[in-house]
Amino acid sequence: MKNYYTRNDWKIIEEGFRPEMHEASESIFSLGNGRMGHRANFEEKYSGKSLSGNYIAGVYYPDKTRVGWWKNGYPEYFAKVLNAPNWIGILVNIDGVELDLHTAKISNFRRELDMKEACLKRSFTAVLPNGKEIEVNTSRFLSIVNDELGLIRYSVKALNFDGNISFTPFIDGDIRNADANYDEQFWDIQASEARKGSAYLLAKTRKTNFLVCMSMEYEVYKNSKSLNPDPEVISTEKYLSNKINLEVKKNDTVGIFKYVSVLSSLNHSPEEIIPNGQKIAAAAKSKKYEAEFSEHKKAWEEKWLHSDIIIKGDEAAQQGIRFNIFHLNQTYTGRDERLNIGPKGFTGEKYGGSTYWDTEAFLIPFYLSTAPQEVARNLLIYRYKQLGKAIENAAKLGFNSGAALYPMVTMNGEECHNEWEITFEEIHRNGAIAFAVYNYIRYTGDSEYLAQYGLEVLIGISRFWKQRINWSDVKGKYVMLGVTGPNEYENNVNNNWYTNKMACWTLEYTVKAIEYVMENHPARYSEIVAATRFNHDSEILAWKDVIQNMYFPYSENLKVFLQQDGYLDKEQKMVSELDPAERPINQHWSWDRILRSCFLKQADVLQGVYTFEDEFDKDTIRRNFDFYEPRTLHESSLSHHAFIPFWQTGSATSTKPMSSTSEPHVWISTIIIMKSAKGFISPVWAGPGCRLFMVSGD
Amino acid sequence: MKNYYTRNDWKIIEEGFRPEMHEASESIFSLGNGRMGHRANFEEKYSGKSLSGNYIAGVYYPDKTRVGWWKNGYPEYFAKVLNAPNWIGILVNIDGVELDLHTAKISNFRRELDMKEACLKRSFTAVLPNGKEIEVNTSRFLSIVNDELGLIRYSVKALNFDGNISFTPFIDGDIRNADANYDEQFWDIQASEARKGSAYLLAKTRKTNFLVCMSMEYEVYKNSKSLNPDPEVISTEKYLSNKINLEVKKNDTVGIFKYVSVLSSLNHSPEEIIPNGQKIAAAAKSKKYEAEFSEHKKAWEEKWLHSDIIIKGDEAAQQGIRFNIFHLNQTYTGRDERLNIGPKGFTGEKYGGSTYWDTEAFLIPFYLSTAPQEVARNLLIYRYKQLGKAIENAAKLGFNSGAALYPMVTMNGEECHNEWEITFEEIHRNGAIAFAVYNYIRYTGDSEYLAQYGLEVLIGISRFWKQRINWSDVKGKYVMLGVTGPNEYENNVNNNWYTNKMACWTLEYTVKAIEYVMENHPARYSEIVAATRFNHDSEILAWKDVIQNMYFPYSENLKVFLQQDGYLDKEQKMVSELDPAERPINQHWSWDRILRSCFLKQADVLQGVYTFEDEFDKDTIRRNFDFYEPRTLHESSLSHHAFIPFWQTGSATSTKPMSSTSEPHVWISTIIIMKSAKGFISPVWAGPGCRLFMVSGD
Repeated sequence: MKNYYTRNDWKIIEEGFRPEMHEASESIFSLGNGRMGHRANFEEKYSGKSLSGNYIAGVYYPDKTRVGWWKNGYPEYFAKVLNAPNWIGILVNIDGVELDLHTAKISNFRRELDMKEACLKRSFTAVLPNGKEIEVNTSRFLSIVNDELGLIRYSVKALNFDGNISFTPFIDGDIRNADANYDEQFWDIQASEARKGSAYLLAKTRKTNFLVCMSMEYEVYKNSKSLNPDPEVISTEKYLSNKINLEVKKNDTVGIFKYVSVLSSLNHSPEEIIPNGQKIAAAAKSKKYEAEFSEHKKAWEEKWLHSDIIIKGDEAAQQGIRFNIFHLNQTYTGRDERLNIGPKGFTGEKYGGSTYWDTEAFLIPFYLSTAPQEVARNLLIYRYKQLGKAIENAAKLGFNSGAALYPMVTMNGEECHNEWEITFEEIHRNGAIAFAVYNYIRYTGDSEYLAQYGLEVLIGISRFWKQRINWSDVKGKYVMLGVTGPNEYENNVNNNWYTNKMACWTLEYTVKAIEYVMENHPARYSEIVAATRFNHDSEILAWKDVIQNMYFPYSENLKVFLQQDGYLDKEQKMVSELDPAERPINQHWSWDRILRSCFLKQADVLQGVYTFEDEFDKDTIRRNFDFYEPRTLHESSLSHHAFIPFWQTGSATSTKPMSSTSEPHVWISTIIIMKSAKGFISPVWAGPGCRLFMVSGD
Repeated sequence: MKNYYTRNDWKIIEEGFRPEMHEASESIFSLGNGRMGHRANFEEKYSGKSLSGNYIAGVYYPDKTRVGWWKNGYPEYFAKVLNAPNWIGILVNIDGVELDLHTAKISNFRRELDMKEACLKRSFTAVLPNGKEIEVNTSRFLSIVNDELGLIRYSVKALNFDGNISFTPFIDGDIRNADANYDEQFWDIQASEARKGSAYLLAKTRKTNFLVCMSMEYEVYKNSKSLNPDPEVISTEKYLSNKINLEVKKNDTVGIFKYVSVLSSLNHSPEEIIPNGQKIAAAAKSKKYEAEFSEHKKAWEEKWLHSDIIIKGDEAAQQGIRFNIFHLNQTYTGRDERLNIGPKGFTGEKYGGSTYWDTEAFLIPFYLSTAPQEVARNLLIYRYKQLGKAIENAAKLGFNSGAALYPMVTMNGEECHNEWEITFEEIHRNGAIAFAVYNYIRYTGDSEYLAQYGLEVLIGISRFWKQRINWSDVKGKYVMLGVTGPNEYENNVNNNWYTNKMACWTLEYTVKAIEYVMENHPARYSEIVAATRFNHDSEILAWKDVIQNMYFPYSENLKVFLQQDGYLDKEQKMVSELDPAERPINQHWSWDRILRSCFLKQADVLQGVYTFEDEFDKDTIRRNFDFYEPRTLHESSLSHHAFIPFWQTGSATSTKPMSSTSEPHVWISTIIIMKSAKGFISPVWAGPGCRLFMVSGD
């Protein structure tokens, strides 16, 4: 596994075809343009193991929840971005035998993701079971300029024969999710048609009624000369294609350009979606592949200009950091405030393409620093628009008077997660959403945002914290009981330091935000007071009481903040004492053993120290770091351990994916690039990027 | 709902047929004889809502686990006693129209469970859609003497017509569980045959390969005169019957006796099970219904002689306590050490007919006091035989060297429960199993049991406790982290007082037991040392260290034992302050809110005080009782609240069943009748019996 992909500054390269790595490579080499994305599936038939994946941002289905023991308050559904009709397919037939890398003899296989140009290329030589030998070259991209457009170039050279080569470009609506809780069919076909030279398919998601229309055009050529073939039209309800037969002589090269538009009802009316799609595909065909690609390249050049990070002297690090930046940029462009960032981008089905707190905690800093201000702003507005749902979520858990709890996992603002220790208790997510408002304004200076959007969100979240906290007589302090911190190797603990800190900070910041809006936007302030029924005097008084009397677990002896109440009752062991054969522990230990151990999945005290770095002196930071880092396993699928195995290290602790599914992970990982005055970098959540920072910070 | 069933010292009576109460009545009026049981389904066709249920003790299926988020260590299956082929059926047809209480006009309906005689009776008048009016009288019982035998008497009187009445007694193997996680078929039919006058069906459970054979014989009569009819034989693979047509005149009464044997491969070889079943059914027919019933009655008289409790001046209480005693006696007879007691006996599918800790904690005291010594002893031996599996269960959770963890739910000793906070953390169950050994010996004086069986179990459990406990540097004591106590409204807490107490007590008792066996049974002791690889010196030393240094949470201020660490950080509220509309809280509050509240489902500190009553003075008992009782909701399906709604109170807090299924609950409830020197009765788990005790204790 170690170093399976070739190191290169700008490219991810796979040399030689290893079927057992194919599903991992399909994830790693994924493409996206913010509006849609797909896995690096082969265009031609492939009868080996593969996970077909085409995804359209914002097009989701409410899959029914699966749960062992139902708890009051669980959501009825888990929304997931669906595997959409497959539009990349091009069957290739050589003298009656189908090209299939599972049955052909392959040599010189090379798959290449050019991150600079955001283009996926592939080349190989194949000897088919009938002895015919061909050389294949493909490239494809999802235009970042015309983001409803995907383009493929596919060419075949006859190496040892005269004969017939056919291309069958198709759209296939007969598609299922691998991740479906009850094997439901998610799509209905609304309309479809294939004619000579073109085809379209209009599909609708069940229940949510999203429309998706895919239209294709194509051109074929022989030895660089455009042809005008007479194709055979193949048209069933779900499968639309043309079959084009081409006569070749030995050493001839025949090829096809496939132009596909992918439109959804997020942006097109039901009446216009088919004609619009046909127009866009036809326009691309007229404009030609190269012209579209050249615009696309230019747009990516501009992205890289603002977001590239250059690491000298460590090619693996350079490749790793660019891989992260590339995925972030191809997953979210910030053009559409209705969209957000699934933890795995467009690389697979796991995590459902839904929105998590990771957006605010880890991704907004990246977009803030590298993209136009509107990009991060749109991510904030996404949450502002879901405030009503956050208030509903909180109400379902017994909170009232406008208290807001943002969901753990969501598409439209409704909670979709169904594990009580997370859904109901991992409430620190609310703090990250408040902090993102502060962070955005701190970075951009756009204080107006507070008045227009931010304050309402802050009031809702502060009300939640106030109600979630209670007074402890024995401590003479406010406490927060029964939470799960970002460290998910503890459940239902009392006084998780990070969560208490985020809560208290939110109250403080909200008080300041209210003062600011009152003073600078009095009319808007009155509007907000009316809209939220805000009682200035009593609510502020109550919040200030919490701010002054909040309890934070602390060891006087060790002079470190404590993970939670009772943390020091645990047997104190170091990660270095663990048997590597038992790592990751979540695949070897039962859950109770994990919970009562001192080991942390993520060191959330350090996440808090990182977030509020300015409050702490260097010694405090160092003491906490030195205490928690040796107890931290970094076994989250957000941690470097989870990703690196497919990549560039050979760590004994991480030779298999963290997930219980076989789907390989690509986490749209965390790149922490906020300026850190004291040079402190959070080791808590770390994609390869973070690891690299730690390296480069040495 | 209030007082739906008529009060009566010895009977449960339903007067008038209310279809919406039928499924509840089917549970309440259930019959059993320790070997098998069934719900009070109607013999004739019933097209209204009904849950058909026939159960054979020990015949189970490993249904695949359903779980939302898989955790390492979860069992792959949940074993459940299956709904077995239906043998009670007798179709009744009047001049071509089927008798069906869902379509007929019913009057004078009366259903009666005679608890003294363990017999179910029913009578009613019905006008069928064709205008024919009949009077029906039925009675049936499951012989407690010949426990493979069920007998039914069914008679019909023609009230307003001359015509034809037919009986079709049948055995139906086309049966499914209502509670099946993946709608699987659980039974295969192995053999079946119907002849004139008799029929049998041999069915096999999938995977577990239990065989069950049901054979029927019958006799028919008119106006008390036996007939010799020529029946029509109906025989398909799964459905075996005879149809007997009888001519009647107005005021004639025709009737049928159905004799059915129910045998399983637990007691019969595959070769003999069919002939044995046929023999038993035929013998019953020769002996006649009345003779079998007379033996059965006599055996029940003997049971009541030893187990009855007489309450004067409170008919409801008298009925309630006898209902409990009746269910306990008909669910478990103690004849077979391979059997145990499902929480709902033979009354339905919920809880799968599996073995829970309730057996040791609550049921053994009942059998100890009322049944021959062998009955309780067989319940203990059941666990002894499963010690190997308990050691395997512990090993799956990371324990070693012979540490034993008895399962939360089981059929054969393997854990079947799959909710981490219970399966992995509700480990107090181990203590109850150790305590039952002590309790049995205390009551019977059978100290030999320790040498023969008890000590090995105690060593396994003590080893578990030792490994599960860890040293806390900050407390300077041993602690037990991450448990769920009997109070299931708390999960993953530290130092649950009850669990710590049970653990520490087990270690103490095991040390004493070792001394006893060493001294009195040296040869057997050597055997045990070899079998368990027991290291006397080091293990005893380690256990004594824990005994001397175990931590027990305690409030110096309130002078009460604390439920767990941090319990007093909670907002302290009384149950009386709760809005009745929010009860039971598990149907109104989200789980996090329940967990962080001070409210207890069961007051487990009091359970500990009750168990070890001799250790505490009256003031200590009173202080703890006065502190916890007002905070205790009694919302377990084991609590009186759960059961009473179907029964005799009109409490606003309990107008619906606790279960999320529609299946009405009959909990084989707890009757605490251990002598209590200080008059203290545990209010923790309370079937109606316990409530009654509290009443009668005033």
